[in-house]
Amino acid sequence: MLGTSIRETQLCYASIRFLMKIAISGKGGVGKTLLASLLSRKFIEAGYSVLAIDADPDANLAANLGFPEPDNIIPISEMDDLIEERTGARPGKSGSFFKLNPRVDDIPDRFAAEHDGIKLMVMGRIKRGGTGCYCAEGVLLQALLSHLLLQRDEVVILDMEAGIEHLARGTAKAVDYLVVVVEPGRRSIETTRRIQELAKDIGLEKIAVVANKVHNQSEKDFITNNLPDMTFLGFIPYDQALIDADLANLDIQGASQLIADEISKIYEALVSSVETASPAK
Amino acid sequence: MLGTSIRETQLCYASIRFLMKIAISGKGGVGKTLLASLLSRKFIEAGYSVLAIDADPDANLAANLGFPEPDNIIPISEMDDLIEERTGARPGKSGSFFKLNPRVDDIPDRFAAEHDGIKLMVMGRIKRGGTGCYCAEGVLLQALLSHLLLQRDEVVILDMEAGIEHLARGTAKAVDYLVVVVEPGRRSIETTRRIQELAKDIGLEKIAVVANKVHNQSEKDFITNNLPDMTFLGFIPYDQALIDADLANLDIQGASQLIADEISKIYEALVSSVETASPAK
Repeated sequence: MLGTSIRETQLCYASIRFLMKIAISGKGGVGKTLLASLLSRKFIEAGYSVLAIDADPDANLAANLGFPEPDNIIPISEMDDLIEERTGARPGKSGSFFKLNPRVDDIPDRFAAEHDGIKLMVMGRIKRGGTGCYCAEGVLLQALLSHLLLQRDEVVILDMEAGIEHLARGTAKAVDYLVVVVEPGRRSIETTRRIQELAKDIGLEKIAVVANKVHNQSEKDFITNNLPDMTFLGFIPYDQALIDADLANLDIQGASQLIADEISKIYEALVSSVETASPAK
Repeated sequence: MLGTSIRETQLCYASIRFLMKIAISGKGGVGKTLLASLLSRKFIEAGYSVLAIDADPDANLAANLGFPEPDNIIPISEMDDLIEERTGARPGKSGSFFKLNPRVDDIPDRFAAEHDGIKLMVMGRIKRGGTGCYCAEGVLLQALLSHLLLQRDEVVILDMEAGIEHLARGTAKAVDYLVVVVEPGRRSIETTRRIQELAKDIGLEKIAVVANKVHNQSEKDFITNNLPDMTFLGFIPYDQALIDADLANLDIQGASQLIADEISKIYEALVSSVETASPAK
């Protein structure tokens, strides 16, 4: 009886730990969206429920995930009526006061797109400019992001910009892993260090690196030597097969066995790191 | 006498047309900052006065231009006292009213950094988040950008984000060329098309493309076939020598003769396009 009870506790833990929240950041162009899409697929294949969030206005996670008409998905930031209804302020109207805690809990189920089992929310670009105030919009997106990280019972994979300013102090606690993607290049290393600093500022301790577009051992050494104090989850090799598949508009998910193998390792590292951290072990 | 007069007119025209304003955009990681820094150097070598503007929070134009302590340059967006003095609102204070036309004309000469003859302004990251309003900051940066494009007597080279939302309708008229950098990849092509649409919306007609990281003829064909209606200024080849120089922390400006030759062609194309458009010809 005792044995069964322990097993039940472990099963229960297992289902809790699968509510993993992964935020992916890094310099523009390093491959954040690629990693987000390949990991989303990996978690779906393993039987998890996945909510992918596109929070990088310069990316197109929907296209990477193979959504049939990615450009038809309306980003939350363009839903002016919704923003006004929830915050009390019309986007673009200057000097207005607005609710700091708008209701967002019904938004994911009403507005998430779905394809091949993956749910997707596209946050969109926060407008700005000299003539209007778009803070209400920012507040809604911020509240929505906090909700998605704190309340959703899914594996959440968040494709972010180079900055992690989106992640407020309270939200950061919900992130199981901030994964910074780095490529062989000094600017990419600098961005990684800046993200590391920002993470420390908001109290986000679980941070790790995935190297991408690695051509050879000397590039790998360059990256590890320049980030000596960071945990590496994996090194994705540069593979012309991936570029060729992309240019030919073929599915990139299965284009490169080399990359697929490395993604499997990264997936295992992520899952086992949370297992290791679990008090049930 | 008539001959002299014509020559004087042409000289006058020459000095006017050299006030060239170039805005560089494109997907993250395609090489906007590389192109901005190499073109800045090229114009300086040719004897022009150059003002470089870093308007991409994910870039480090100062480092690319060889500024000795790039991280010591304080971005305008972090000058809270200046922002409050000029707009009347403290950054982060919600619901405040602020001046929509703050004074900015003295800011470039007071706050631009200088190295090897190149003046540099770093705009910085516009903060945002759930608890504060940073619209005053955005207004100041917008006014400053308009001023830099409309009023400065220099070659202005603007390193931007993937979006061109910074460029208001009035400012766009001052841009002689919006150069979109593209690399062999579908997402990069998509971003280029999106920028092309945005440019049309704000009335910016002079738009051209520079391809970067081109490995072979089929990648070149992919890019030109996918952007059939656009003008190409040049095709920068992929050169491992540039990556190696960057990783070894050597000056990237002289690292690759292949790239230097192509930058010369792009420079010539830019200058001659404005010459061709000049009524003196």
